Amino acid sequence: MGGVIDERSARVLLSIWFESADTTVVARVRARGALDVVNRIVSGRRSVADKRGTAGRIAEITMDEAAARAQAVYDAATRIGARYVIPGDAEWPTQLDDLGDRAPLGLWVAGAGDLRLLALRSISVVGARSATSYGEGLARELGAHLAEQGWLTVSGGAFGIDAAAHRGSLIADGATACVLAGGVDVPYPRSHADLMARIRECGVLVSETPLGGAAMRHRFLTRNRIIAALSRATVMVEAALRSGSRTTAKEAAALRRVVMAFPGPVTSPMSAGCHALIRDQGAHLVTSPREVLAFVTGELLDIPAGDAPSLAWREQRVLDAVPVRRPAPLSSIAQLAGLGTREAMAGLGMLDALGYVERRGEGWVRSSAGDGGMLAG
Amino acid sequence: MGGVIDERSARVLLSIWFESADTTVVARVRARGALDVVNRIVSGRRSVADKRGTAGRIAEITMDEAAARAQAVYDAATRIGARYVIPGDAEWPTQLDDLGDRAPLGLWVAGAGDLRLLALRSISVVGARSATSYGEGLARELGAHLAEQGWLTVSGGAFGIDAAAHRGSLIADGATACVLAGGVDVPYPRSHADLMARIRECGVLVSETPLGGAAMRHRFLTRNRIIAALSRATVMVEAALRSGSRTTAKEAAALRRVVMAFPGPVTSPMSAGCHALIRDQGAHLVTSPREVLAFVTGELLDIPAGDAPSLAWREQRVLDAVPVRRPAPLSSIAQLAGLGTREAMAGLGMLDALGYVERRGEGWVRSSAGDGGMLAG
Repeated sequence: MGGVIDERSARVLLSIWFESADTTVVARVRARGALDVVNRIVSGRRSVADKRGTAGRIAEITMDEAAARAQAVYDAATRIGARYVIPGDAEWPTQLDDLGDRAPLGLWVAGAGDLRLLALRSISVVGARSATSYGEGLARELGAHLAEQGWLTVSGGAFGIDAAAHRGSLIADGATACVLAGGVDVPYPRSHADLMARIRECGVLVSETPLGGAAMRHRFLTRNRIIAALSRATVMVEAALRSGSRTTAKEAAALRRVVMAFPGPVTSPMSAGCHALIRDQGAHLVTSPREVLAFVTGELLDIPAGDAPSLAWREQRVLDAVPVRRPAPLSSIAQLAGLGTREAMAGLGMLDALGYVERRGEGWVRSSAGDGGMLAG
Repeated sequence: MGGVIDERSARVLLSIWFESADTTVVARVRARGALDVVNRIVSGRRSVADKRGTAGRIAEITMDEAAARAQAVYDAATRIGARYVIPGDAEWPTQLDDLGDRAPLGLWVAGAGDLRLLALRSISVVGARSATSYGEGLARELGAHLAEQGWLTVSGGAFGIDAAAHRGSLIADGATACVLAGGVDVPYPRSHADLMARIRECGVLVSETPLGGAAMRHRFLTRNRIIAALSRATVMVEAALRSGSRTTAKEAAALRRVVMAFPGPVTSPMSAGCHALIRDQGAHLVTSPREVLAFVTGELLDIPAGDAPSLAWREQRVLDAVPVRRPAPLSSIAQLAGLGTREAMAGLGMLDALGYVERRGEGWVRSSAGDGGMLAG
């Protein structure tokens, strides 16, 4: 890197100067590039808002000093076998761009696997640290099944569900990714140092936190968005009502990833978070690792999870196009539904038989009892 | 009743001559009255289709004999304290009319309670005969809670979940209704004779099967539609994948009753039926008796159970009115949704922010990624 700062070095510096998820910084980096942002900061023309005075301090260093700092950080990373992956790199998981201004500036990655390739077929497994043997058994079985089917298990390396999922994957000789809140060189919890070492051998350790960074509380919360964004789906295995893993599930839902949860006994507080996710947030109830994968690969997409479970795709689309009050003619319903009139008519016939809609005069309208009901499959 | 046949006697006769759920007979009774149907049969002008030759045999009796038969049946019923409740009676639960041509011709009722009044606030509790202690505990707790809150527990008197629900209700000094497959004078299973006697004291025994009728297999299936139709909601507590109680849940769903299920460990085959009901049929997951009642009384109606859990009523209605392909103007969306333009615009704004819809030109259209997604709550 020499004395010259490139985009990667600039992102390294910004990731050190600013805490993760500083949307103002990320927004400017996305608009103008990290190099420009660093230049403005170092030259004192910084327009990056900084509530913590960090920019005030770093503004006192010169560009040469900044370049040297970046180089030193990168040299240290290289010595421990870590790399800094940024947008545009072949290894960058582009699905992280779904986070918009909340995307990480880059990710420190350590391990044998290629993060982007692995994450293409990945599922995040989340849950409680104080899991029960029931939950840990499920998580281990899930990690193993995903591995056997060639899928990456993404989790956070914590006690309980996380570790069980990672271990299940490792036992089945699969790859697993651990997204850490601290630096990839800071095993947390410490007693998982061996687990982390094995994950690094067979998969990847990932973090946006600079090397050496401690696993601090606020970093767990921001870390969760990366777990959610990396994968196509997030599965909650076991969690209490107030569990950090619920933030991951919420992130996943907001990112339109598939969200699933395993039920458990209603008498177990460690399943209450899963039940709430299914009941209140519309997460899919899953009962086996096979179902988890089937949901994600779409094999089960014909199983609707909504209010009108027995409605096939066509009927649902037609129903959406039928007015609530004033009847509409077949032609306009077909157009609204994006279907041919024959298709739409077939759908209306079925919906009529099921009691969802009724003919009125020349048109169709929803049945008065046709809202929020549920039909037999 | 004397030698004259009235509507009630006619229905008694038809219920003896024809097995329950003979939709042809019921359709004719609904159209012309039971008396007319009996008259035609007895006079030989019968137009009631009969595949089993029953009408052929009964056609040989005279009207006097028919009247005497009805009187004898009714006298026998009176002796054991049973009554035959038919549509039009003050005690007839009019919600059974939702069954249309599948409605029972009448119901034999024995017990201290008034069936219609009790059933106004009733919930059906169904599940496996070979329930676990987990399921039986939940059913008992549910029956007791419903009783404490002044609700009737409806069930089928079987081993396992049924009996536990009835008992929970009785323990809490509440009323419970047992809908039998055989006659109300034929306790089934026999070992539940004491339970049935207690139910009769504090609630009602109900059946469409004539007195003395055995609890035969096909009668259980047809009986289930009455359990489903009597109540506002059906709760499955514990059931295997192939359980008779699933037919009750399906009936309830088809009748647009609220359908709920308790989850359990995924490792328990006795919870697999509940999980399938939630996963595949859109039944509401419930975790406590309090939640069951809250769902039915509408306290939890703001908790949506569908694909778009965070959407309020207004947003859901507006979303349904937004076309999938060709953009529609605000005015037509508002009309379709049955809302004022201001309301509709507010909904569109929210849906836009959530990523469900997007403005295109002068109109609005669903976002391409806006189907089947799930949002954070």
